Amino acid sequence: MDIVAQMRKFMEPKSVALIGVSRSGQALDGMSFDILGNLLKCGYQGRIYPINPHASEIMGVKAYHDVREVSEDIDLAVINLPRELVPQVVKKCIGKSVEAIIIVTQGFADANDGEGKQLQRELDELIKGNKVRIVGPNTFGIANAYTNFNSSYTKLEMSKIPIGLICQTGAFFAGFPYSRLIGKGIDLGNSCDVDFADGLEYFEQDDDIKVIVLHIEGMRDSRKFFKKASRVAFKKPIVALKTGRNERAAQAAQSHTGSLVGKDEIWDVALKQSGIIRVSDVEELDDMVKAFCTLPLMRGRRIGVTTWSGGFGIMGVDACGRSNLQLAKLSTATIEELNVVSPSWQNVGNPADIWPTIIVTKQPLLQTGEAAIRNMLHDPQVDAVLCIFSAVTHGLHSELCQCVGQIIKDFPFKPLVFHFYGPFSDKAKAELEERGKTLGFLSPDRAIRALGHLADYSEFRMKF
Amino acid sequence: MDIVAQMRKFMEPKSVALIGVSRSGQALDGMSFDILGNLLKCGYQGRIYPINPHASEIMGVKAYHDVREVSEDIDLAVINLPRELVPQVVKKCIGKSVEAIIIVTQGFADANDGEGKQLQRELDELIKGNKVRIVGPNTFGIANAYTNFNSSYTKLEMSKIPIGLICQTGAFFAGFPYSRLIGKGIDLGNSCDVDFADGLEYFEQDDDIKVIVLHIEGMRDSRKFFKKASRVAFKKPIVALKTGRNERAAQAAQSHTGSLVGKDEIWDVALKQSGIIRVSDVEELDDMVKAFCTLPLMRGRRIGVTTWSGGFGIMGVDACGRSNLQLAKLSTATIEELNVVSPSWQNVGNPADIWPTIIVTKQPLLQTGEAAIRNMLHDPQVDAVLCIFSAVTHGLHSELCQCVGQIIKDFPFKPLVFHFYGPFSDKAKAELEERGKTLGFLSPDRAIRALGHLADYSEFRMKF
Repeated sequence: MDIVAQMRKFMEPKSVALIGVSRSGQALDGMSFDILGNLLKCGYQGRIYPINPHASEIMGVKAYHDVREVSEDIDLAVINLPRELVPQVVKKCIGKSVEAIIIVTQGFADANDGEGKQLQRELDELIKGNKVRIVGPNTFGIANAYTNFNSSYTKLEMSKIPIGLICQTGAFFAGFPYSRLIGKGIDLGNSCDVDFADGLEYFEQDDDIKVIVLHIEGMRDSRKFFKKASRVAFKKPIVALKTGRNERAAQAAQSHTGSLVGKDEIWDVALKQSGIIRVSDVEELDDMVKAFCTLPLMRGRRIGVTTWSGGFGIMGVDACGRSNLQLAKLSTATIEELNVVSPSWQNVGNPADIWPTIIVTKQPLLQTGEAAIRNMLHDPQVDAVLCIFSAVTHGLHSELCQCVGQIIKDFPFKPLVFHFYGPFSDKAKAELEERGKTLGFLSPDRAIRALGHLADYSEFRMKF
Repeated sequence: MDIVAQMRKFMEPKSVALIGVSRSGQALDGMSFDILGNLLKCGYQGRIYPINPHASEIMGVKAYHDVREVSEDIDLAVINLPRELVPQVVKKCIGKSVEAIIIVTQGFADANDGEGKQLQRELDELIKGNKVRIVGPNTFGIANAYTNFNSSYTKLEMSKIPIGLICQTGAFFAGFPYSRLIGKGIDLGNSCDVDFADGLEYFEQDDDIKVIVLHIEGMRDSRKFFKKASRVAFKKPIVALKTGRNERAAQAAQSHTGSLVGKDEIWDVALKQSGIIRVSDVEELDDMVKAFCTLPLMRGRRIGVTTWSGGFGIMGVDACGRSNLQLAKLSTATIEELNVVSPSWQNVGNPADIWPTIIVTKQPLLQTGEAAIRNMLHDPQVDAVLCIFSAVTHGLHSELCQCVGQIIKDFPFKPLVFHFYGPFSDKAKAELEERGKTLGFLSPDRAIRALGHLADYSEFRMKF
């Protein structure tokens, strides 16, 4: 069976056995820790078989004492039992021809004791000799908003966003930075069998997914991963948060998912060579997911900055230096256009500081701002534009946002991004993003950082 | 007259002449560009003298044709006239014994033409031969929430926050990162006379001000600045955003405020040696202002991390490496305490991943979380604690926030900061910060970065 078909059993199961469901929905201090309850609430349409040796019905669903008592085929089994019981239950599942198993339980390669390692070896033996594939142990498993399937034991918000997540922490299921929503997610946990390469292969062919996000602590077979990743990255952007950068963090990763993290510098180079965009924290991850979902690719690294604040414009230029972007050398025609209405003593350039034009020559605020954006975007020397705009009064940014829809239609192949400052900046950002195809960022620096990554990925795509 | 007395004329004027006020309040596209209107609205209690050769009353205030017609003393004159008129009006002000002048007008050292430079030279001559001090040109001037005084021509939100700002962009008056509020602000603009050192001297003795923020593009007399800064930094934290890091940014700074930016590496070292905390962007600036306003200083660089998510804990450890912080080696007693309720296979350490304790041994969520924080804070090997906590359900974080007030009272000398993940993370952060004396950060990385700066500043203070 090919890997995509194997992964479908996890991602789109037609039937699922839940092994280790308590007779009543478990509840711990008001938090739901109940896989069956969560699955029923999220609207899953497949068949569900709760397995419990002491129950014949749980939460209105017929229960079975043993997985082998189920007469129909089972696509996926989710095991959430004390660790010492897990290998024998995996054996039973194999006996029932189950080919996909999620092991939720902790305390295998992630444990500090010998028993955990021994139990892991038993699992390894079972995987080797059989067709079965295992996700985990130590995992929330799978979430899929498109099939309303979800094996996690805490509540999470799913939504049909075009983002495929492969991670090693369940916290990303409940707390994924992108609006705290999850589209499709695979929590690999310890990743004893199903790994990043398998997940990538599944998302590669998945038309629902436009951007792939990886949270990597470590992996055993990085050669296999990078081979697959550089192929997939050519089709879809891959954003990676690789953690475990220093020695102490590596030790922590060993305790968390039993991962060997590897040298950070090597990861840096290898991710870059594979066309994967490496981010440093959850906010940068969020920025890049939004950028790849929203903005067109860039034809080069030349940035135009138009700004209402000379001081903030300089911050944008500083950031270009950090992201290996060039401040565009504007063409003569653009410079002439920008200077038509500027005061005689100012040579407007890049960044185009339009404040003196407004203050000294009393040009209309909005038209001056819009014209500067259009002049920059029209210039063949410019590959993307950052506009820094004031949101100090109630309405002006709204008028700008209304123009932006048409500007983006007129220049669909160049990214246009914004930073708003002032008391209404959050409101302005929200209004702007309603237009689609553009983004507001919380600092000029974050806007430029996102454009830098976009340029990196665009270059990778153009190599082929 | 000493510098503080001179600066008081700017910051706390008893009377102000506004020179260049149009007969009606100017309004440009719905944005107010009206210094008189703004000043009346913000509740200033001093005397106001609008100066306009064609008006005898503006907005209900008696107006004068010439500054010399005012019979009372004038503490401060604000000049907002076309640049070619400025030197002769400065002369008139000097004739009237005005000792503090704000020049709002642009087009002096910031201009690209010879006339601007010539006008600047004329100003320089006037400053040299007289007692007068000038803020600007090219400035919003002064804002002071404590005296309801404000010379800026656009609207801004003032509030009695304990932050003294000295900047070179008016955008920081309207869009200061800290909640978009301004406590006391000096926009130096081109800084032809009054400079960062003067502003520092004023804020040094100002009991309203706990934290000083600098936005620096460049300065002429950096020796004078650093001498004063290292003295002031010993009394109050100084946070600096120094922009103009690369050559193109330096050119932009030359056009913006006529500033010579200097070598960035030298700034880096000099700021550090003077005990000034250098930040890279507006978000880091915001984080540090909040940190210095809220958290106690640190006795060392040893961090304890307690986390509900092993994966996020590793991010915190990665960040420690970047900020030159050490992950604390916990004392035996702490480790024993942490392990009392953990599963047999887990050696809880630092970061203390308490998820297995909750899931495997079914310990109460809240008590386990609280105990871990208290154990860490109690440990003499720990100088500050980052707690990473889930905000995935409606109520749990609220219960935690309720505990935090008492925890902070019990451990007042160690910073305790948080990162929340999950759908309720914004709400959790807001609830937390209501307790005071603690902060939530938007990533583990930003929390650790803030602690790193706090440790740097604490070390500087302890040197003396």
